[in-house]
Amino acid sequence: MDIEFPFSELPAVLRGPRLERRRVLLGGSAFWGTMVEDGPQAGRLRLDDGRTIDADTATYLPPVSPSKIIAVHISYRSRSMETRNTPKPSVTPTYFTKPPSALNGHGGQILKPADCCYLNYEGEYAVVVGRTCRNVTPDEAWDHIEGFCPALDMGLQDFRDTDQGSMLRVKGADTLLPIGPGIVRGVNVFEQTLRTYVDGLVVQEAHVGDETIWGPHYVIADLARHLTLVPGDTILMGTPCHSRSVDAGQLVECEITGIGRIGGTVVAIDAPRAAALGVGHAPTDSPEVRRVALGFDERVPQRLRDNLAQAFARRRAERS
Amino acid sequence: MDIEFPFSELPAVLRGPRLERRRVLLGGSAFWGTMVEDGPQAGRLRLDDGRTIDADTATYLPPVSPSKIIAVHISYRSRSMETRNTPKPSVTPTYFTKPPSALNGHGGQILKPADCCYLNYEGEYAVVVGRTCRNVTPDEAWDHIEGFCPALDMGLQDFRDTDQGSMLRVKGADTLLPIGPGIVRGVNVFEQTLRTYVDGLVVQEAHVGDETIWGPHYVIADLARHLTLVPGDTILMGTPCHSRSVDAGQLVECEITGIGRIGGTVVAIDAPRAAALGVGHAPTDSPEVRRVALGFDERVPQRLRDNLAQAFARRRAERS
Amino acid sequence: MDIEFPFSELPAVLRGPRLERRRVLLGGSAFWGTMVEDGPQAGRLRLDDGRTIDADTATYLPPVSPSKIIAVHISYRSRSMETRNTPKPSVTPTYFTKPPSALNGHGGQILKPADCCYLNYEGEYAVVVGRTCRNVTPDEAWDHIEGFCPALDMGLQDFRDTDQGSMLRVKGADTLLPIGPGIVRGVNVFEQTLRTYVDGLVVQEAHVGDETIWGPHYVIADLARHLTLVPGDTILMGTPCHSRSVDAGQLVECEITGIGRIGGTVVAIDAPRAAALGVGHAPTDSPEVRRVALGFDERVPQRLRDNLAQAFARRRAERS
Amino acid sequence: MDIEFPFSELPAVLRGPRLERRRVLLGGSAFWGTMVEDGPQAGRLRLDDGRTIDADTATYLPPVSPSKIIAVHISYRSRSMETRNTPKPSVTPTYFTKPPSALNGHGGQILKPADCCYLNYEGEYAVVVGRTCRNVTPDEAWDHIEGFCPALDMGLQDFRDTDQGSMLRVKGADTLLPIGPGIVRGVNVFEQTLRTYVDGLVVQEAHVGDETIWGPHYVIADLARHLTLVPGDTILMGTPCHSRSVDAGQLVECEITGIGRIGGTVVAIDAPRAAALGVGHAPTDSPEVRRVALGFDERVPQRLRDNLAQAFARRRAERS
Repeated sequence: MDIEFPFSELPAVLRGPRLERRRVLLGGSAFWGTMVEDGPQAGRLRLDDGRTIDADTATYLPPVSPSKIIAVHISYRSRSMETRNTPKPSVTPTYFTKPPSALNGHGGQILKPADCCYLNYEGEYAVVVGRTCRNVTPDEAWDHIEGFCPALDMGLQDFRDTDQGSMLRVKGADTLLPIGPGIVRGVNVFEQTLRTYVDGLVVQEAHVGDETIWGPHYVIADLARHLTLVPGDTILMGTPCHSRSVDAGQLVECEITGIGRIGGTVVAIDAPRAAALGVGHAPTDSPEVRRVALGFDERVPQRLRDNLAQAFARRRAERS
Repeated sequence: MDIEFPFSELPAVLRGPRLERRRVLLGGSAFWGTMVEDGPQAGRLRLDDGRTIDADTATYLPPVSPSKIIAVHISYRSRSMETRNTPKPSVTPTYFTKPPSALNGHGGQILKPADCCYLNYEGEYAVVVGRTCRNVTPDEAWDHIEGFCPALDMGLQDFRDTDQGSMLRVKGADTLLPIGPGIVRGVNVFEQTLRTYVDGLVVQEAHVGDETIWGPHYVIADLARHLTLVPGDTILMGTPCHSRSVDAGQLVECEITGIGRIGGTVVAIDAPRAAALGVGHAPTDSPEVRRVALGFDERVPQRLRDNLAQAFARRRAERS
Repeated sequence: MDIEFPFSELPAVLRGPRLERRRVLLGGSAFWGTMVEDGPQAGRLRLDDGRTIDADTATYLPPVSPSKIIAVHISYRSRSMETRNTPKPSVTPTYFTKPPSALNGHGGQILKPADCCYLNYEGEYAVVVGRTCRNVTPDEAWDHIEGFCPALDMGLQDFRDTDQGSMLRVKGADTLLPIGPGIVRGVNVFEQTLRTYVDGLVVQEAHVGDETIWGPHYVIADLARHLTLVPGDTILMGTPCHSRSVDAGQLVECEITGIGRIGGTVVAIDAPRAAALGVGHAPTDSPEVRRVALGFDERVPQRLRDNLAQAFARRRAERS
Repeated sequence: MDIEFPFSELPAVLRGPRLERRRVLLGGSAFWGTMVEDGPQAGRLRLDDGRTIDADTATYLPPVSPSKIIAVHISYRSRSMETRNTPKPSVTPTYFTKPPSALNGHGGQILKPADCCYLNYEGEYAVVVGRTCRNVTPDEAWDHIEGFCPALDMGLQDFRDTDQGSMLRVKGADTLLPIGPGIVRGVNVFEQTLRTYVDGLVVQEAHVGDETIWGPHYVIADLARHLTLVPGDTILMGTPCHSRSVDAGQLVECEITGIGRIGGTVVAIDAPRAAALGVGHAPTDSPEVRRVALGFDERVPQRLRDNLAQAFARRRAERS
């Protein structure tokens, strides 16, 4: 990364002890809880009201309520190599946004409209702002981080041709941001490995510290040059190579070791009613759409490509 | 009611067509939908994204996000008769508040701490504010109502002795406000009947138009003398006679005919940890607590009392 | 206080360095800033965007955005002595609530409707919750405190007779909670002195550590037995003796040494329109209203009574 | 426009009577009010609490609290002609977003950092969503509109070269969205004229009905194909030709006849501290930046260009 690492002293949010907070819906009421780290209850979720529940079968809500969601376009060397054929896409990071209405929780449905073909996964880690933040340096930025979450920055690449780069339609549709299950502090995110899975097979893989170009402290300092970040604001930190399209029925997951694993299932829905009236940009299957949706296989490790092929083969076999 | 009724023309929120909006969690993402009123899909929930789902098995979120929740103490003649031995408790309504953290959805868990005995139900209808509102007359108030919801104003009467009447502990604890499943407009609430059920047996019953002392327009005009109501603010309209205590495992429901039926199950939790340190007012079993928790049976219709006794008898039989 | 003090080690929120955050409106946009503690700019407000402005002439917004506001009824020995003739009003604290619509900023207008006589000041310090909090012990509570603010818990005692103790009308009307100008951490609130001023003359005075019965850690642990506190939630910590009524035109201030000084001016407004229609409880001048509004002078230090008398004498002189 | 107009019956939000709601800060407290339309008080603001104040000297807050802000790239023929040399830029509209932290009120400061040269105005009208909205047709969209506001979609074009079209830095910085002073319904926005002023001289002008390519109903139906719009969400409807850069000290205003006039003053601030550390994309003065910032004068009416030149000449004269 451009900002040297490791630090003389690790920032508190990267140092232990580990603390993971999750928010679940039990019946119709939302409850916060803390993951039990040690002892016979380890791996279960202790609700703040004293109950301990099975974390695997809980119904999760997103652990964040951001006023804004900002995403780095490219922050992994392998992604830059794949899409730009260079290990660093630009001198400085660039950003786009996703609206809060795109939030989705662990175990959620990721919607794919009937008139779309290219719903791409992008496994990422997210940074959650803990304190109001404007005009800070990268060093100061650490104190403004609440924690980290696994996330999936899903995109409907059928709309790649429109919106002149803002990607509002590509990345901003409802359900396209699964995040959680928890928000975690006390883990050194730079020492972790990101893995995206389709139906349980690894299709993206990157060591965060080795592969990412800009750290969260740099990104927060960069954004805070321009705007005020407030508690809950969420920043998606980019994806490594091999973002590809998935089909209805497939399970997509992103794991950040030490932090957690978010998953969601692709679910088909009808095309919107206004589409039949000819309102707005229709999904297209243009060369530009295909370029992004299908990617550049030759620059992706064979193992990841094989796994994705295997996932699709299995699904076809199941269907026939 | 004090304000004459019926009106020369019914306010729009009381006139058809009926519109019921519900918010569900599918996977980890919240979706709004409209109940299908007619045709082969009647009784199902049509999500805004075009899908139609089974309304009976959905996971519900509260359909409101209020900045404040205000409740009328007594607004039903039968409740006033029971507790005050007069059909009208005072010349004007009085109010208390519940914090937003008490919100619960349909099908939720209603928590009963181990050190408490008296968790009382109160079936009510709620009024949801649709437009910012201050200093209005009762006539003007109608235009500021978004719709109506069934609600349960649950109370832990063990804390009746403290808080000098604010009832923050009695009525404000987490989960003590199940509300929903939908928010409904286009139904004349005055022509409806409220019924509360314990394990399916009717334990409260009142005709809204015949029994309530003050209508929602009056209450909004009264509150708006003092404070600004904003969209989403929710007002609980009081309960009829026979609020009584329920036990862990019991299903409590409130139905407002034409509007809907909200339900929740009582769930036992441990006493809070600070209680063991002697922090704060301990739950008590004083005469005042019992007076409110147990009520005045002689002023309640025999049928409602019999039903509640039967519900408890069944539960005892199941346990033994 | 009931929980021993001082601690073996001061909680971080009570230890230096001092940090005061304020939110101002410049033109039509809200900006956060930090008070400059040292050097030639000391006492000025450094906005996060780099500008330094005059803190005395700024336009302040409330520094908090609470989902709920909870107030302790009585937490000062002198107030307990005045109103109950005992140094401790009860074994444990009791609470009421104020709605968020009551929030007011430093330099604000405190509205007194034409049909009301008794608008009482109550100088207090407020505690702001920094982290989600449920079921904690007093020791753990410290880590969930963001900071402290001066506040004025104003009350229209003309409505004392109604609402059965919830005081929604007394304490919940618009503008009745001036708070700020800043939120402060790094100051030992127990070593500070609270002073309320009317037109610059001291009318309430209490040493926080010596006079208060329950500390903020105790109160948070008590409330968190029942409900979930979330970031921004604000708790008013009670007032010392000599809450009295003020008139339109008077300047009311509350200073907590080391933390700050909040002020607002009483402004007359018309009675609400619904009052002319006979809607709702009319303000009354009953013995109970007078008992609270006028207080018990014989239990109040002569100096404070003389100051208030002098403030009113000055005002009368100015008018004639 | 693509959707025929006029309608057989005007939607309610376009029909009278006119209703304008504004939110002001008086002292430190926010108040809503309604503009007086007729009689001796016409043009004054009647606060909901009954007071009538001078609307010209009030301190305004933004009249909206959106969860998301979406802007149409190009929706005026003259703007399309200027920048693309065609009266219609694309078959369908395209969008970008601004974060809520960019909101500014009437009379606000529009911040221009010391390292930036090209702060461009874009006068627009905004549409405010009044009801939750997903998957609607253009006809249905009308019922989901709360009203219209004048707005200035300010942009720091120095960052045009970065962010790959999302314009987060260009359009998303703090203070870059002055909006208000009111939100207006009951006015036919298609019959109005938009005018942007610099120091009182008209620099943009367009008849909304004649010049705009897509109406608000079309845009809402288009967006609601993809995402859920919720009450308060705000859509900026694009600007006509002659967006140009302004300097510190200049007053920028946008008037929509019949709806209102929003104004703000450009204020210089220091470059952010992280800029000195080399963090993030530096403002550039590239051909692409100049192309957008300076525009194409030959395609702009001479009168508008002369007015802008005159505004700058006056300012230079004042300075020297």
